[in-house]
Amino acid sequence: MGSKAAVLWTGGKDCCLALHEAHSLGYFVTALVTFVPEVNPGFLAHPLPLMALQAEALDLPHLQIVIGVPYKESYIKAITDLGSQHGIETLVTGDIDLINGAPNWIRECAEGTGVGVLTPLWQLPRGVILDKMLTSGLDVRMTCVKMPLLGVEWLGRKLDRAAVDELIELERGGVVDACGENGEFHTMVVDAPLFLKRIVVEGFSVGRLSMVSIRPAN
Amino acid sequence: MGSKAAVLWTGGKDCCLALHEAHSLGYFVTALVTFVPEVNPGFLAHPLPLMALQAEALDLPHLQIVIGVPYKESYIKAITDLGSQHGIETLVTGDIDLINGAPNWIRECAEGTGVGVLTPLWQLPRGVILDKMLTSGLDVRMTCVKMPLLGVEWLGRKLDRAAVDELIELERGGVVDACGENGEFHTMVVDAPLFLKRIVVEGFSVGRLSMVSIRPAN
Repeated sequence: MGSKAAVLWTGGKDCCLALHEAHSLGYFVTALVTFVPEVNPGFLAHPLPLMALQAEALDLPHLQIVIGVPYKESYIKAITDLGSQHGIETLVTGDIDLINGAPNWIRECAEGTGVGVLTPLWQLPRGVILDKMLTSGLDVRMTCVKMPLLGVEWLGRKLDRAAVDELIELERGGVVDACGENGEFHTMVVDAPLFLKRIVVEGFSVGRLSMVSIRPAN
Repeated sequence: MGSKAAVLWTGGKDCCLALHEAHSLGYFVTALVTFVPEVNPGFLAHPLPLMALQAEALDLPHLQIVIGVPYKESYIKAITDLGSQHGIETLVTGDIDLINGAPNWIRECAEGTGVGVLTPLWQLPRGVILDKMLTSGLDVRMTCVKMPLLGVEWLGRKLDRAAVDELIELERGGVVDACGENGEFHTMVVDAPLFLKRIVVEGFSVGRLSMVSIRPAN
């Protein structure tokens, strides 16, 4: 039996792919973990009720840990507690890349906690990650888009081969990061090989947040 | 004569207040500096043409330095060049707070470059910063808002006492950071004591970027 692991969970493609990668590598995943900000006045791209359905489909407990100020201490305590209270030896994340060149936040916070960090997607080319997503059999839906980079017609779309090719084409044109690393889009996984059942969503509500600006006319 | 300084410039209230604070502290500000991302597929809250007008009003050169991948090396080189090519001894920023607990990026990149960093607003309470903005005589306009946190009626509004009080009230209610630290809004300075002339903008264009999401109905 491999190392006892938890996956940092947002409901999207990256964490679910990381879960499958960790599973393939022999890790024994025993929980999904979501760090929930104490104050979040902004836009919640990742609905907790959906994550609860995913955890149920995976037959895994969903641990929600509240993160507050000061952040670093809060993250360190949360990761330490995962080790001491839940026996987690490895924390798996779907993190892909540096943010503004800053080091990986979870890896940094986990240092010295006794909990290891596995980032199976780290700095892989975007095309490789998206191919892995397709060949792993994840059913991923586009659930949040930043317009006008991506139009509203993307909402609800399955990330199949054609959609992935379009994203890679848009990345070539400098429009988006093909994995949405700059917040261009967010996704939700509705089915995957490790899901015991497919998630069926009966109805949707639509959220919208607009940035509006004025600037000197040219 | 104080240390020869450059101010990291975005056109908004924080950098302009930092300029005035540095000036009061005896620094000799000789340039405005804007780090321009090589690729920016997103939304530009800070129009470069407006910054050019501000630099002209301040009678200062506006240095635009392109930042690329890898970011950290790119920032370190940019800051080093400010020292060696422009004689800058101190880089002044309007940075206010940690981002997710991460250390100050500019300070980190400036380490070892020989260029010092002055952050006169660092970790001051938001109300103190906004009071300084008012008493310093800055004419600050709201130019970008994140709806629905702030409505479109804020666009173009002057940040006077009444507006500041409203922002602080919204912060108390957990709606926004009163200084817009989470991207809730952006501002432009159209006049300030160090401006040789007021900036008059003849016409505006309006930009809009929407985040749209679907989520399971409750």
